[in-house]
Amino acid sequence: MASKPQQVLGYAARDASGHLSPFTFQRRPTGADDVAFNVSYCGICHSDLHCLKNDWKFSSFPLVPGHEIVGIVKEVGSNVSNFEIGDHVGVGCLVGACGSCDACELNLDQYCESIIPTYNGIDVDGSTTRGGYSTIMLANHRFVFKMPINLPLDQAAPLLCAGISVYSPMKHFNMIEKGKKLGVVGLGGLGHMAIKFGKAFGLEVTVISSSPHKEKEAKEFLSVDHFLLSTNVEEMQKSRKTLDYIIDTISAEHAIDPLLNMLKIDGKLVFLGLPPTPLQLQAFSIIGGRRLIAGSGIGGVRETQEMLDFCGKHNITSIVEKVPISDVNKAMERLEKGDVKYRFVIDVANSLKSENIAPI
Amino acid sequence: MASKPQQVLGYAARDASGHLSPFTFQRRPTGADDVAFNVSYCGICHSDLHCLKNDWKFSSFPLVPGHEIVGIVKEVGSNVSNFEIGDHVGVGCLVGACGSCDACELNLDQYCESIIPTYNGIDVDGSTTRGGYSTIMLANHRFVFKMPINLPLDQAAPLLCAGISVYSPMKHFNMIEKGKKLGVVGLGGLGHMAIKFGKAFGLEVTVISSSPHKEKEAKEFLSVDHFLLSTNVEEMQKSRKTLDYIIDTISAEHAIDPLLNMLKIDGKLVFLGLPPTPLQLQAFSIIGGRRLIAGSGIGGVRETQEMLDFCGKHNITSIVEKVPISDVNKAMERLEKGDVKYRFVIDVANSLKSENIAPI
Repeated sequence: MASKPQQVLGYAARDASGHLSPFTFQRRPTGADDVAFNVSYCGICHSDLHCLKNDWKFSSFPLVPGHEIVGIVKEVGSNVSNFEIGDHVGVGCLVGACGSCDACELNLDQYCESIIPTYNGIDVDGSTTRGGYSTIMLANHRFVFKMPINLPLDQAAPLLCAGISVYSPMKHFNMIEKGKKLGVVGLGGLGHMAIKFGKAFGLEVTVISSSPHKEKEAKEFLSVDHFLLSTNVEEMQKSRKTLDYIIDTISAEHAIDPLLNMLKIDGKLVFLGLPPTPLQLQAFSIIGGRRLIAGSGIGGVRETQEMLDFCGKHNITSIVEKVPISDVNKAMERLEKGDVKYRFVIDVANSLKSENIAPI
Repeated sequence: MASKPQQVLGYAARDASGHLSPFTFQRRPTGADDVAFNVSYCGICHSDLHCLKNDWKFSSFPLVPGHEIVGIVKEVGSNVSNFEIGDHVGVGCLVGACGSCDACELNLDQYCESIIPTYNGIDVDGSTTRGGYSTIMLANHRFVFKMPINLPLDQAAPLLCAGISVYSPMKHFNMIEKGKKLGVVGLGGLGHMAIKFGKAFGLEVTVISSSPHKEKEAKEFLSVDHFLLSTNVEEMQKSRKTLDYIIDTISAEHAIDPLLNMLKIDGKLVFLGLPPTPLQLQAFSIIGGRRLIAGSGIGGVRETQEMLDFCGKHNITSIVEKVPISDVNKAMERLEKGDVKYRFVIDVANSLKSENIAPI
């Protein structure tokens, strides 16, 4: 076991410009309960961009982002019996939680108020957590996942945030009844995973989008059943009361009532995005059909492993654009414009070389 | 059976001034499937006021309001085997629905698009429906309820709208787990029924109100466990994540996020009021705790009878102020100011005398 701190090369933003550049730092020695792994790939989540730019006003710099981290185990602590060197593993959005609050006891550790986020958080030893835009990752084994061996690691990385963010509410709010009709709003990292899970659960999937050019790709690459242009008032009106479920992944301000009106009686709409302005809706849009609105954030640790196993069984992965870490700033610019199909994944192992680590 | 139209004395508004005055009209002869009854009492619902004033722009005058109607059966049609002369019966918000759409097949006839409202609707024979501010009521037996014989009819009348409007979502959204904590927002007709049902289900009930003077009455008359002043920021903050359920009955514009923040993880908020402006809420208020928001309107016919039977068993009634029909306009003025504890009920049988019916 590493008895001394481990030197790691990462990419960090030094300030709210968000510009990422090489940064060396230390991770703690692999503790008795820890699993350490060489990072193979790390997905780029839209929240990475928000944190880099300090949009949410709680970023602490230097900041090494990344919470869709996959790799190969290099070392396990003496108390860890469920992982072995060479295992395919992953770490998602959190690396710690109190373990004893109401949320933790319900296996909803993502809502624990003492959560330790994978980056930009305070770790148990008081150090700042640093994410997966780095060569080595390390976490308590309770927050490390087994990646299904049949899934390519690069395409599986986004399951750890985009995947679980969609799977968890679909399961919890029972949006999985075979033959039911699902609308997906927003065709990005989360949206395309909603389509994939929807199809796996046997749902009929409609993409609702304001971009006509997305119709072709949605049907060709993602096999969606229908495409509905949200700006086409007549089509929207014809689709009134036709959907059982809607997953809304949009983080920009947008009209909610037209979506609610597409839901049948007892229909359900789940919000996953965080628009900067309040959601606005007429009370009648929910009262006039006993409709349900809910929000959901990522998923718990136990459910994340369940989701990964489900993906292994059904061969569900993300559609990714692989980029070398040297292109990460360019990728961020494209992400900001929504120009990605459908998730950027950084090829860490092949582009962030250990021989580049500067001596500390 | 009455073979000719029945002359009825009612109170109607002639225009959007909403002023009510005596009005004679005819109801159809009691048909083979109908139940006719002498009206004993009729509750005054806030929506009566909206309709009288044409607030929703679909009122047709003259308009005889009233959809919390109770009385004694005077005549039953030849096909009707489940009612007898002398029975205590009631009619709520609807007197017809198509019977074959998705909503009707789910026993959610209240969401049927061909619903026939008890007043201001078009009946099967093309006539305008007229409500319970009248001496005689008549409806297809499928829309007539058996009132529990142990409940005083005047106090039971508001169960037919205020009661079912609260009971239905509590049951459907499983807001009935013994020992859980319920917040009730708005202490009017619906709010006080939410408290009564909450107590019957074994919940710990908190009233959330902006009126400090309501604390005493809420605790004394309604035995609520806690009273929370919504304008007390410190108290509201201390109550963060303490409630399992909230029932919001407010029809005026009001802040939603402070209410959502009072809900625990997986907490549920149901809206029953129809504010004139859109509801506004931060996405994070629901995402940061997997919270659920829903709307609900009255209840289905089958569930309304179930609710009445439940009330009979648990001796649940509404707290009412009984008024003669000659005071109905005064009652409307007071209702508009929220000055009623907690439901006006018109004493139809004793104040709207048949000897006053003018010859047609």
